[in-house]
Amino acid sequence: MLLKLAFIGFGNVARAFSRVLAERRSTLSGKYDLEVKTTAIATANHGCVLSTGGLDLVKAAELSEQGGSLATLADSLPVSNPLELIERCDADVLFETTTLNIVDAQPGLDHIRAALNRGIQVVTANKGPIAFAYDELKSLAAKNSRCFFFEGTVMDGAPVFNLVSQCLPATRVLGFSGILNSTSNLILTEMESGMSFEDALAEAQSRGIAEANADYDIDGWDAAVKAVVLSNVLIGGYVHPSHVARQGIRSVTANDLSAAARFGKSIRQIARSTRTSEGKIKITVTVEEVPVTSALGSVRGTSNVLLLETDLMGEIGIVENDPGVQQTAYALLSDLLRIREGLDSRH
Amino acid sequence: MLLKLAFIGFGNVARAFSRVLAERRSTLSGKYDLEVKTTAIATANHGCVLSTGGLDLVKAAELSEQGGSLATLADSLPVSNPLELIERCDADVLFETTTLNIVDAQPGLDHIRAALNRGIQVVTANKGPIAFAYDELKSLAAKNSRCFFFEGTVMDGAPVFNLVSQCLPATRVLGFSGILNSTSNLILTEMESGMSFEDALAEAQSRGIAEANADYDIDGWDAAVKAVVLSNVLIGGYVHPSHVARQGIRSVTANDLSAAARFGKSIRQIARSTRTSEGKIKITVTVEEVPVTSALGSVRGTSNVLLLETDLMGEIGIVENDPGVQQTAYALLSDLLRIREGLDSRH
Repeated sequence: MLLKLAFIGFGNVARAFSRVLAERRSTLSGKYDLEVKTTAIATANHGCVLSTGGLDLVKAAELSEQGGSLATLADSLPVSNPLELIERCDADVLFETTTLNIVDAQPGLDHIRAALNRGIQVVTANKGPIAFAYDELKSLAAKNSRCFFFEGTVMDGAPVFNLVSQCLPATRVLGFSGILNSTSNLILTEMESGMSFEDALAEAQSRGIAEANADYDIDGWDAAVKAVVLSNVLIGGYVHPSHVARQGIRSVTANDLSAAARFGKSIRQIARSTRTSEGKIKITVTVEEVPVTSALGSVRGTSNVLLLETDLMGEIGIVENDPGVQQTAYALLSDLLRIREGLDSRH
Repeated sequence: MLLKLAFIGFGNVARAFSRVLAERRSTLSGKYDLEVKTTAIATANHGCVLSTGGLDLVKAAELSEQGGSLATLADSLPVSNPLELIERCDADVLFETTTLNIVDAQPGLDHIRAALNRGIQVVTANKGPIAFAYDELKSLAAKNSRCFFFEGTVMDGAPVFNLVSQCLPATRVLGFSGILNSTSNLILTEMESGMSFEDALAEAQSRGIAEANADYDIDGWDAAVKAVVLSNVLIGGYVHPSHVARQGIRSVTANDLSAAARFGKSIRQIARSTRTSEGKIKITVTVEEVPVTSALGSVRGTSNVLLLETDLMGEIGIVENDPGVQQTAYALLSDLLRIREGLDSRH
């Protein structure tokens, strides 16, 4: 089966995914009966192009990394903007990886709406649209008999949404706690080892894991939006991202960290969702002292953990150790393969 | 859809499962279109019975807990042994939960063979047959177009096999490390807090988590057999349980634990599977000092953790906190629901 792919947003994650697709071509073809062709790529700074013959994705990744223009790709035609690209790309699957906008999730939200309305399946690593409009997008996808998957929005490629939907039948998620922002956790643990805040932040940026706007990491927005996504999807009941009680790591000092360490504690940024006694969902992102030997306190570097409190299965956790961009790229691959599998079962 | 169930083995796990089925009846019926009827139960000490009208499972659980005979159940007919029961039970799904036999996995292995040959789907929490004969049972199930699921064999109801098969497509598991035996881990952590070995073991037994023969826990057999099951299913390449380099916790003293603690270490029983430089799979169960702040060293009480090393997703872990019998019962439920789902997709 040939699936035609389109990309809106072509940063670290999409470029790493391009390379995974190329490296795994024979597995995808042999084991999943899947061939892919890229018919469109929209970038913020390197142009927007269409192609009926197919674009060379790896070449596109190289070009955009080198600051070149995608207009120089063989067989490419210019297109004026992402929405026009969606109209004209004739793709089966759109990969939406534009960056987080904490005000209104745009323009990613409109890209996903337009694609689903055109009958294009959507894979996204952009958490904004799922935080701001999950119920709307779910209805829109159902109305158009299309899927939208977003495993990469939380904990990169570690299966979080799939774990619950595929592996925990008949169980309700009651609440969760987790360390969800790699940049903040890397900064806190590097500062524990004596590095300055600025150097640790620069390290996160050089590893490609910080948000385009790193303030979103440091001020807790990334964790807050992820917690809203988890809560929307796993628990239900909508909380607006601006209503999350949110605490960033900006005020944490080296002295705070060493004082905590003397009492066997780590300082960690922890996202939580709980149900209040009135039955309302409360989401918080707090900076807390937790025992260094606890499931949350022992998480170091870019590692993430999510502990789910469930009714039938008690507390169950998923851990992702030292992820990088490769792991988020894997999320896109696993979502693409779910779409491929769904196309089989529709026959 | 009505599924007829049969049980061979009716200990803590099967009895807890009986109660979960009763408690969740409306969810199973409403959300999964699943009604169940129990047509046979074989126990070691409380008789073996058949029924065409259906047996009261919760009543059977109460009877066997009180030392009564299942022959007193309404509408029950006696049957002489489990293999005859398989022939006559007319069930759709067999729940095989007899206890571990580390010599040859019998009689559980013959029960599963007989059921698959009769066209009965199998759910088991008995790790022996999967450790000793996974490839054979997989072929037998395929030949008879039936399923056999065994999520409860490792880490109770925490999805381990389903995590890999359902949520990590196109990724290879290269190796793993984990804390897999709840009884040993409970004993080690209770001894850290000053309890004696004997009292900690008695606690594990009273909580229903120790193997019928607790030597299997303490001498590392349970962890070794689980590691073989994981290796068979997730990595491939057969290792006989007797070829696992195996170390139990019997020789660990309170002094060892406190000496380790002074250096920020915990003593833990760790199961590992790695590939040697010659490409062979090596499985070990060792008692090691690990940092108390590490993913393995921070696991306390009956909690379990499994860290999977993968090619595309790096290291990913699953954690189960403070499980009891309820969590293993959940494994049986989740396997039953996979069978139910599979019956839909065969239409």
